[in-house]
Amino acid sequence: MLGLLYLVFIVIGGLLLWLPVSHHGDIGLSEALFTSTSAVTVTGLVLADTGAAFTGFGQAVIALLIQFGGLGLMTFAVLVLSALGIPVGMPQRLILREDLNQTSISNLTVLVRVIIVVALVCEGVGALLLAFVFVPEYGLNGIWQAIFHSVSAFNNAGFALHPDSLSQWVGNPLINIVITLLFIMGGIGFIVVGDIYQARRWRQLTLHSKLMLVGTAFLIVWGCVWFALLEWTNPATLGNLSVGDKLWASWFQGVTPRTAGFNTIDTAGMHDSTTVMTMTLMLVGGGSTSTAGGIKVTTFAVLLLATVAFFRRQTTLHAFGRALGVEEVLKVLALTMISMLLVLSGIFVTAISHDGQFLDLAFEVTSAFGTVGLSRGATGELDGVGRALIMVIMFIGRVGPLALGFFLATRTVPRVKYPPGQVYLG
Amino acid sequence: MLGLLYLVFIVIGGLLLWLPVSHHGDIGLSEALFTSTSAVTVTGLVLADTGAAFTGFGQAVIALLIQFGGLGLMTFAVLVLSALGIPVGMPQRLILREDLNQTSISNLTVLVRVIIVVALVCEGVGALLLAFVFVPEYGLNGIWQAIFHSVSAFNNAGFALHPDSLSQWVGNPLINIVITLLFIMGGIGFIVVGDIYQARRWRQLTLHSKLMLVGTAFLIVWGCVWFALLEWTNPATLGNLSVGDKLWASWFQGVTPRTAGFNTIDTAGMHDSTTVMTMTLMLVGGGSTSTAGGIKVTTFAVLLLATVAFFRRQTTLHAFGRALGVEEVLKVLALTMISMLLVLSGIFVTAISHDGQFLDLAFEVTSAFGTVGLSRGATGELDGVGRALIMVIMFIGRVGPLALGFFLATRTVPRVKYPPGQVYLG
Ligand SMILES: [K+]
Ligand SMILES: [K+]
Repeated sequence: MLGLLYLVFIVIGGLLLWLPVSHHGDIGLSEALFTSTSAVTVTGLVLADTGAAFTGFGQAVIALLIQFGGLGLMTFAVLVLSALGIPVGMPQRLILREDLNQTSISNLTVLVRVIIVVALVCEGVGALLLAFVFVPEYGLNGIWQAIFHSVSAFNNAGFALHPDSLSQWVGNPLINIVITLLFIMGGIGFIVVGDIYQARRWRQLTLHSKLMLVGTAFLIVWGCVWFALLEWTNPATLGNLSVGDKLWASWFQGVTPRTAGFNTIDTAGMHDSTTVMTMTLMLVGGGSTSTAGGIKVTTFAVLLLATVAFFRRQTTLHAFGRALGVEEVLKVLALTMISMLLVLSGIFVTAISHDGQFLDLAFEVTSAFGTVGLSRGATGELDGVGRALIMVIMFIGRVGPLALGFFLATRTVPRVKYPPGQVYLG
Repeated sequence: MLGLLYLVFIVIGGLLLWLPVSHHGDIGLSEALFTSTSAVTVTGLVLADTGAAFTGFGQAVIALLIQFGGLGLMTFAVLVLSALGIPVGMPQRLILREDLNQTSISNLTVLVRVIIVVALVCEGVGALLLAFVFVPEYGLNGIWQAIFHSVSAFNNAGFALHPDSLSQWVGNPLINIVITLLFIMGGIGFIVVGDIYQARRWRQLTLHSKLMLVGTAFLIVWGCVWFALLEWTNPATLGNLSVGDKLWASWFQGVTPRTAGFNTIDTAGMHDSTTVMTMTLMLVGGGSTSTAGGIKVTTFAVLLLATVAFFRRQTTLHAFGRALGVEEVLKVLALTMISMLLVLSGIFVTAISHDGQFLDLAFEVTSAFGTVGLSRGATGELDGVGRALIMVIMFIGRVGPLALGFFLATRTVPRVKYPPGQVYLG
């Protein structure tokens, strides 16, 4: 059901982008559908330079598709129906639950309001700040650029209006701070944002928020430090930059793999080691109920906690004074297994049908599955079959975890003994 | 403790192979230690052509290292002590337990006897049959070749006396049947062999044996069919062979990744897709208490069963009318996580320090970790650092699971409710 809605949106978006009014060059139906899929699934893999190939109208369509895809189609459905005075009955609410990975129906309208408010405020403030960079450079068009990049960043879409993404601003502090803050906020999950807003104190935060905040902080430090260490002298990436720019670029490139998809450095220029590290970050992804993809930070955290607990001969998992039941571990195991099998199958099928550099193909498949959008250039070189494959993987990468998350959230297992903390795993 | 014993053995073996009497060409201490590590860990990765570089004495040393490494040093220690009339006390028995991944001490002497008898009978019969191939071709030297390859095959060592492994006999039925049967028997685990010998009927087999037999059969069919499908027209592998040879080669190449390490086809000639499939098989490996490596077939089976059970909303795993407790799933999760982290770290570090083809390096690391010994040629090109890395990974790949298996086997968790079936996961 949810998948069908996304599909309808992709087709409508593709048809709109196919219209002559949307593009300059030769964008066929296949390219239009690919772009639409990439936008609705907030991935950001592209076949053409978004800024050059699409007109202002086309870019607006893409921004809308990103907004709809990122915030969840259902949030908008509820809003529209409410605005029209039509009571939002159970069926729609159930779909909404599936989309946002929520179990309790009563919180839903509150949650929707939180989502919309947070999103619009963030995107508005972001656009305002970005205008200080874009307007002096591009004049009136700079306003549109600020809005587009703000929407794209908050929704972790990774679409940019320049062929080398944001590489022009590799050392620009405003871009490096505003864009990353936008996609970190968007990727950490509405639950966490709402929780911080309500609780305000660390101790009052839920287990989920604590895990997300600590996990995100750890992964950011991990990614940035490794990127700097591995690429510091690589002439294709950091080598020729000033020390200040090197630090800014390491910050940006360490944060973007989960799952923003912008880049300020040539992704194809990275060493193989950095590429592998980036792929692992892309697989982990962001937070549940967020605009990010991947197996999610909490899933990864539970995997690690379970392993550590095991080697300490503990039968339960503890984190921040809360116990996590065995059923959480089973969820995590199933989710991770399915994800790994999907990514492996994707890499396998792509490798069968295409003879490019293996690592580049594997990177592209991982990027599509995690709806990241970073590219080492393989996507642009794929034939029809390859494009179709990447489209399917992006679709599964976005809709799969949502559907799976719904399944996980509604699974009823008798809980025993411990005061249970709840973690969102989809 | 166990690791130290293996280490001592590796050093002694390395020194013996370093002696001028052991080799013809310029085998330095570094090459000798690498070969010794590869033999004791029954991996089979080599820097030089074993048949050309080492004398008969050197080859005999290698065969002995393989035999000691494969059957477990401790089996031999017990034997020697018993033969000398020295009572085998608890400490030694405990080490033996660690080596064979067994929980019950009382079965140990029985098990050791089973192991020795099974190994010698299999290797003897194997050598006899292989002599029909090697003696007509090589005369008296053929007898030694038959013995060496039989020992190497049963212990899943993958050492061959010809630079292209067994490629000369790609279509030879005797080689294709005897060698594979030897390494399948050696790799399925002594427990299963002993169980089949005692039970003789399917219904009386333990859950572990049933899982191993069904899992092994499935993985063999999977590997062979995919290899044939993917490589059928590849001129670098199957393309130029007759249909009969193609089928034999597919059989051999489908079975050898878990974790025999012989090849009848040029491993470097395989497509990327086949390479990825082979790598997954190498990671799965063979059976517990066997000469094989990897995360083990039962671990993989429990991973799949847990995922299936989860999607059926079952809280327990069932297989062949037996329930598997949650603690088994936790074991499996911890073991798989550790293994994946190790392989990923190995690939990461190798990629940092070496700039070869990524897939070839990743293949080599996976092969070393699974103590498989298949190679796409990267091992021969590595510098000192790379060789040291591969040696460490082989060592961890062999000793790690044994130590971990001991840890897993001795872990006491209160079992509840279901009649528990036991599965060996190390
Ligand atoms: K993205
Ligand atoms: K081997």
